[in-house]
This record gives sequence, C-alpha cells and structure tokens, in this order.
Amino acid sequence: MNERELWQRYREHLCVRPDLGMWLDISRMRFADDYLSSMSAAMAAALEAMRRLEAGEKANIDEGRMVGHYWLRAPELAPSEELRTQIRRGIEEVKAFARDVHTGQIRPQRGEGFYAVIVVGIGGSALGPQLVADALGGADDVMVVRFVDNTDPDGMDRVLTELEEALDGTLTVVVSKSGGTLETRNGMMELAAAYRHAGLNFAQHAVAVTQEGSILHQKATHEGWLRMLPMWDFVGGRTSVTSAVGLLPAALQGVDVEEFLAGARACDAATREREVARNPAALLALMWHYAGAGRGRRNMVVLPYRDRLALFSRYLQQLVMESLGKARDRAGREVHQGLTVYGNKGTTDQHAFVQQLQEGPDDFFATFIQVLHDRDGESVSVEDDVTSGDYLTSFLYGTRDALYRAGRDSITLTLERLNAQSLGALIALYERAVGLYAELINVNAYHQPGVEVGKHAAREAIALQRAAFAALRALGGGAATAEQIAAAMGRPEAVEAVFHVLEHAAQNPEHGVQRLPADSPCDVQFRIP
Amino acid sequence: MNERELWQRYREHLCVRPDLGMWLDISRMRFADDYLSSMSAAMAAALEAMRRLEAGEKANIDEGRMVGHYWLRAPELAPSEELRTQIRRGIEEVKAFARDVHTGQIRPQRGEGFYAVIVVGIGGSALGPQLVADALGGADDVMVVRFVDNTDPDGMDRVLTELEEALDGTLTVVVSKSGGTLETRNGMMELAAAYRHAGLNFAQHAVAVTQEGSILHQKATHEGWLRMLPMWDFVGGRTSVTSAVGLLPAALQGVDVEEFLAGARACDAATREREVARNPAALLALMWHYAGAGRGRRNMVVLPYRDRLALFSRYLQQLVMESLGKARDRAGREVHQGLTVYGNKGTTDQHAFVQQLQEGPDDFFATFIQVLHDRDGESVSVEDDVTSGDYLTSFLYGTRDALYRAGRDSITLTLERLNAQSLGALIALYERAVGLYAELINVNAYHQPGVEVGKHAAREAIALQRAAFAALRALGGGAATAEQIAAAMGRPEAVEAVFHVLEHAAQNPEHGVQRLPADSPCDVQFRIP
Repeated sequence: MNERELWQRYREHLCVRPDLGMWLDISRMRFADDYLSSMSAAMAAALEAMRRLEAGEKANIDEGRMVGHYWLRAPELAPSEELRTQIRRGIEEVKAFARDVHTGQIRPQRGEGFYAVIVVGIGGSALGPQLVADALGGADDVMVVRFVDNTDPDGMDRVLTELEEALDGTLTVVVSKSGGTLETRNGMMELAAAYRHAGLNFAQHAVAVTQEGSILHQKATHEGWLRMLPMWDFVGGRTSVTSAVGLLPAALQGVDVEEFLAGARACDAATREREVARNPAALLALMWHYAGAGRGRRNMVVLPYRDRLALFSRYLQQLVMESLGKARDRAGREVHQGLTVYGNKGTTDQHAFVQQLQEGPDDFFATFIQVLHDRDGESVSVEDDVTSGDYLTSFLYGTRDALYRAGRDSITLTLERLNAQSLGALIALYERAVGLYAELINVNAYHQPGVEVGKHAAREAIALQRAAFAALRALGGGAATAEQIAAAMGRPEAVEAVFHVLEHAAQNPEHGVQRLPADSPCDVQFRIP
Repeated sequence: MNERELWQRYREHLCVRPDLGMWLDISRMRFADDYLSSMSAAMAAALEAMRRLEAGEKANIDEGRMVGHYWLRAPELAPSEELRTQIRRGIEEVKAFARDVHTGQIRPQRGEGFYAVIVVGIGGSALGPQLVADALGGADDVMVVRFVDNTDPDGMDRVLTELEEALDGTLTVVVSKSGGTLETRNGMMELAAAYRHAGLNFAQHAVAVTQEGSILHQKATHEGWLRMLPMWDFVGGRTSVTSAVGLLPAALQGVDVEEFLAGARACDAATREREVARNPAALLALMWHYAGAGRGRRNMVVLPYRDRLALFSRYLQQLVMESLGKARDRAGREVHQGLTVYGNKGTTDQHAFVQQLQEGPDDFFATFIQVLHDRDGESVSVEDDVTSGDYLTSFLYGTRDALYRAGRDSITLTLERLNAQSLGALIALYERAVGLYAELINVNAYHQPGVEVGKHAAREAIALQRAAFAALRALGGGAATAEQIAAAMGRPEAVEAVFHVLEHAAQNPEHGVQRLPADSPCDVQFRIP
C-alpha cells in the first residue's frame, strides 16, 4: 500500500477512546478486508463468555473458581452482597492503613514513623506492584519502596544493605495469596532475622496480604502483626494488581489508588463494548489471533516509548504467557498454546534488538506504545524548534514505517498521558484482551498447572538434600563420591541430583560440606568433617 | 533416558573450566550421538576464522573494519604496536581518571568532590555499563551511577529529580563512538541545560568517551571538558564493555576493572581451544545451532538464578540479536537469520512465564545460569538444615528436570562465584559464542545495517515536523486538518505522518500547537495562534 492508502486504512480502523485517553491503531497489521467480519461470530461468543465470567460463572473450570478481578474496580458488579462488601472494605482498609502510616498514627517500634517499605512477594505478588512503582513513582515518593521477589540470598542482602540503617523505619509487606509460596516464606524469614539482628521486633513492622485462614494469616495473627489485608480465592495472582496486592504498596508510595482503580474501571466498561471496532481489547485479541494464526506462531514484541513503562513487557510476559501457555484446551485436546512476549522500551531497543526485527525472521509482531505528553514543564530545544520528545515520537513512527516496509506488522497504542488513571486503563485493557483471546482459542486463562511441576520438583530436591547430608554425616567424616552417597541413600539413580546438591553445599559454609578435587570432575569426593 | 543414562550423558558432555570457575552442561540438549562429530569440520573452520579475526583480518567485511574487542583485554595480541600502545594507554587513562576523581584530585566546580555519575549513552554505550553496575554494584559503591539511555524527556527528568540537589557533585559521562547518536546528543543537551540551570558550568563536570575527531570529541575539546577517553573504529558498540565505555563507569563505581579484564582475557584464552569438548563457547554455538536448526527456529530463554544477573538476558538480546539478525549472509543470499533472546531471572520467572515453557509451544530452549556461592557471610536456616540458597538451587534443577520431562531442552551454565572476574568471563564467553555461531551460519556479526533505517526515517520525520509547523504558521493563526496541512506543504501523501507530528505537538507546550476536536478523530484541526 502507498502512503495515501495507508492513511485511509489508518482512518478506517483507528479505535479512539476519549473516555480512556487512548487510541489503538491496527492499520499496520496486514489482515485482509474480510478478516474482522470472518471473526465476528467468534468474538461475539468471546464477549458473551466474558459477560458470564463477570456475572460470576465459575470461569476457572479446572479449579472450580470464579474469576473476579473486574469486580475489584466495580464492586457493584460482584455477584453477592457479601463479595461487594468485602471488596469495598478491602479498598477502604488499604487507604486507611496507608493514611495512618503516612500521618504517623501507625508507628514502628522505635522512631517517629515509617519511611520505607519492602514488599516480599513473587510473580503476581510482585510484578504488578513493581510496574506501578516504576511507572508512577520517583524521587518524590512519600515512601521508598523496594522488593524482595526471589529466594536469592545475595539479592536479599542487596536490599538489606541499602536499608540496614533504616530498618527501624521500614515496613515489610508480605504478599502471598496461599501463604505457602516458598520463595516468599524464605524472604520473610530472612527479613525477620534481619529485624531481630537490629534489635527490632519484626511483628511491629510487618503487614500481611493473604487469604483468610492461610498459613501466613495464622502466623501474622499469632505474632500480632500490624495488619492483615485480604486476598480472595476469586482473584488470580497475575490479575491481582487492583487488589490489596497492588493497592497497598502503591498507596504507601503515594499513588492515588482511586485514580488507578477509576482508570481500570473505565477501561473495563469500554471493553465490554459489543461493537468490535469500538472495543480496543477485542481488536487487540483479534490482532494477536491474526498475527499468530491462533497458535501463537509469532512473538509479541512490546516497545513502550517511555522509560517508566520499561517493566510493562515483563508484566505482560506474566499476564499473557501464564494465562495462554497451556498444554490442553478446555475440551482436553493437546494444543500447546502460548504467546511469547518480550521487549523493553524504545528508542533504546532500537539500538539493541531492532536490527533483528528489521532484517531477521518474520517471527514477531510489534506493539508500539506511545505517550503523547512528554513531561511536566517545558522542554529545552535540542535543535531549532525540536525537542527530545519530538525525537522520541519520530523514532517510534520511523521504526514503525521501516518495519512495515520490511513486511513486518505492528500495532500502535497511544496514551495521551501516563498517570495512575491511564496505567489502570492500560492494565485492564490487556487483562481483557487476554481473556478474550483465551476464549478465541478455548483455553482456561485462569489456572497455571505447569507452575506446580517445578515447585514439586524443588520440594523433592530439598528432601533429597536432607537425605544426602544424612548419608554423608553417617560416614563420620569420611569422604565419598556422589555415586557412593547416592548408593548409600538407597537412591543410586538419583546420583546427578546428589551431585548438584553437594557441589552447591560445598561452596557455602552452612552445611559443613567439604569438596576434595579429583581428576574427573564428576568423581570429586565430599565429606562433612 | 532414565536418570542413570542422563548421569552418564552429563558426565560425558560436562565441560569444566577450573581456570574460569565455570562449567557448561549440555546434557539436556537432545542432540544425537553423531551431532558433534557431524559439525566438527564446520566448527574447526569457525575457530580458524576467529583466529584470523583476532590476528587483524578485516572481519567486518561490509564496513571494511577490523574486529578488535578481544585485544582490549590482551593488548599484546593487537596487530600493530600503535594499537597495542593505544589500548594500554586507554586502560591506564581510565584507571588514573577514576583514581583522581576518587581522591579528589579532580574536583567539580563547587564542593569537595564527585560522588555521583550519570552515564549518557544508548545501546552498546549503555547496556554493558548497566549490566556491570547492576551485577557488581550496590549500596556500598564508591560513586552512585545512573543512566540516561533514551531520548525520553520524562525519563531524563526522573534521573535529574533524583540528583537535582547533587548536580554540583555529579559527573556526567557522555558515551558515543560516532559522537552523532541523536538520543545521546539530546541527553547531553538536556543535562547541560540542567547544570546551567543550577548555576554550574557543564564542561567542568563532563567527560566524553568517543572516537578522536568525532563531533562529540570536537565539542568536548572546544568547551574544555574534564577529559576525553578513547573509542576505536575496531570496537563495535555491543562489544565495547571492556573498552573505556564499560571500564570508566565501572571504575568510577569502584569495580576492580583489572579483575574484570582478567576474567575476559582468561575466557578468551579458554575459548580459543580447538578441542571442542573443552571449549564452552564452541559448545554453546553448536547447541544454538542444534536447537534452532541453524535458522534460529527456537527462542533462547535465559534464566540466571541470581538477582544481580537480571539484566544479562537484556545484554544478550543486544549482543545476540544485533549480531545475528541479518537479512543476507556474507554470500549475499537472502537468509533472514536471527536468534531471539528473552528472560529475566529465576526463580522469579517460574512464577511468570515458565508456565508457558512447561506446557506451551516447543519454540525455545532454556539457558539456566547458576551461581554456586550464595552470599558473603552465613545464611539463616529457613527450615531445619535448609537455606534460601538451597531452595534457589533446588528450583533451578527442579525446573530443568520438569522441562526435560516435558520434552524441552536446556543448557546449564554454572559459575562458582559472581564477581568482576567471572562477569568478565561470562561476557567474553558469549561474545565468542556469537562470533563462532555467526561463522557457522555465515553472517557478518559485526555490522547493523537495519539500525540505520529507523534513524533515517526519524530524521525524515523531524524534517517533516519542521515543514508542518512552517505550513501551520503560514496560516497566521488559522486552523487546518492534517490533510489540508499536508496539501499546503506540497506533500499530500504524507498526511498520516503530519497527523502524528501534530497530535504529539498539541499535547506539549513548546510549539504552541492547539488542537480543535472534530466529530471524526482524523479530522481534528490544528492551529498555531
């Protein structure tokens, strides 16, 4: 198509939502003229399925659960008075707690008030809050927010080193829906030890966000933590950012959580729209379907041209890949569905991997995210009548055009401004798009059976470690190879796992394991003197 | 294969390099028994090509340049005395400059000394330094390091807000090989304005890292900046981390750059090894070739189980995708080669996208990166005789096993410790693997013709912006649609580009453009009163 024809296509397909301060341009996706109409019945069914989901149908069929993240920003839509009350009370509790911390009504054991917060959580309990913190926060935040989102000892030390002089003014928020996530449990125990080491009582600095009755809930109750805030069965981790999981860190940091919820709520309303041309989430889902032939055959490259949105593609990796990456569809057929997401930010990525997008395999489609408003305050000129922000825009559209000419497709999503409201809308947009796309390909977007496999294997590895140490200690200071130890454990087949456990133990002091080199690396001997 | 057979396969293929404190395990890649021998002639040729490249052959044939990043850590290998001297002098200059800044020999205009540094650069001039800063730095750094790696006005404001009270003690390092990178130029101009605004003379706080004679070099000379450090024609941006580009920020931060160089140097020596089984870079390149059938048909998912290496996959995205993502091979055939890289860190990603790896399409291979040493100091127990680090290891091997059982391949790279030396080795390992793989698929790994396309398009867009403003001003306050303005410019076909320029301008105050809404979004009118 030439430039005039592209302008016509742009005009024809542009989806403008002034209510969200958002536009979606799908003109650079090369779908045929009849594509949208060919998909209209399937999309109508998907929109109807989403309506039933929002009405309280148990949409997560495998786990027999309702899917209620949309109610979090419109409690009146929840299917029972009890749920409506719980949700409204949850929001009020978050706001009241943050206000009380900010005003000094709630104080730490020592000192005047809290000025920093460490959020301990992983996956859905960390990525949303991290995105919000990075997208909306800065040096002027009411409280400094840091995250422990892994069971990496060095990573925890790094956070603790930064805050070690400040622990007496640091609040720790432990986030785990089930309360049993091991990485989070470990982070909590390491932090509790650090507070103890500083002569502080952890409970007087701790808040839990968890389901009522969970192990974490019991522990926090027993120890008398500052507060417990609710998570619910009907909210999945990757869609929990508009629950206390996301709202509490945001409110503590100083974000206007009502604005954030209002943005998500407005986008939910807009994306219930049955007229597909006016529904940006439906158009996104259709474009993903078009690009990957409904099989995820092209990677989704997400390029926000705004530093503050650099975590957004990582957030989408979770939301999209964990929701859509499924071995079986809802009919039980083996489908191995998925939709791979990667990207960081523009223009920066233009100097990194865009070379491959421009010249390499036709294995992706791009999503450009533009923010029209450059900054608060005026810009300096970097050339006569040209600002840094003009260049940012020019690089975006330059790259979009260059990719198009190279035969590579792209979507462009434009936000007027980036703020709490539009971030809420952006997140809700993708939540809805994922839900609709999952309907198109008939997978359950709300469970994650594959995650359990790795957890189970890790538990087995920990049990194996205990057995290996016991076998080694039984040698009374004698040395043995992994082969010999595995045999002594009565698990000769587990020799490689034993080897990995002992190689790790030998590089760390806690278990007293020593390593005696050998000619062949797999024949090293280990001992506990 | 059962566990015993896997242990045999593990033993057979394990590549242990005690000289690097590194092992490479390829046992979970399902190549056939004769695969390595079938590739031995091709790999021998690749190793020979790398020998010629290191000897000074113009390996970047399209641009007629030598490829000399390996000389940066072994100057004696450079092909002329002049180069050897330049490289040695460059390292000494970096160390001397950092020492003089640390001791206060070099001081800012006001105040006692510099305690913060802003690095302005993009792509190869930022990602390497960012990786080093994150992997090796922390709260105890000698100087705080921040980056401006984009032309995002809001992103620059964020860095400046954090340091605004500290600009009088902040050094700015502007990094651009050519000196003409527009994003970097813009960042430099915005920072210079901020220093001026604080009543400071930018030149007394500025250092340039650039090629002699570049525009940046001329400007720095003319204005009397604190120092100019060299970049060379024979070092590409994405392999510049062992030049002043990476060494200067690292040295200022307090990293031992000699250790970093020593690690890279040792890895270079190890990966010149002709015996493939002992050469981890050759094995990596072969595994990439195997996984993607020499066509990049599977994505490379990089999962370091260490928070400090979370940027490593982003670093590799650039190194791998910019090097290998090429439309044509060296024989001029259209090949559209590439190798997609993504990932963040484990275990965290297990709670994000590993669900899709476990159950979704067979479109990737994983690279696990393990660090055996957990932390400085001892760990608390999170269960009886179990540490957080034991869990980290268990999750890694648990996920590796679960993926294997699901029919998904993986590589595991183990480092004894993460420090300046092993980080240098890790970077050098992947540089060499990329070089070898490029030989296997016969592409030039050292140019980036696709990057120019976006730049060129952006320059055109800036020119168009000027013309659009001129046309709008010529209306003397009158309003017109994008269609009308494009027609008035004599460029009716450019209407969409004009529309984007004006929509952006209307949301920002600098150009005085106003927007008058219309019924149809593409028919809005613009004016400059």
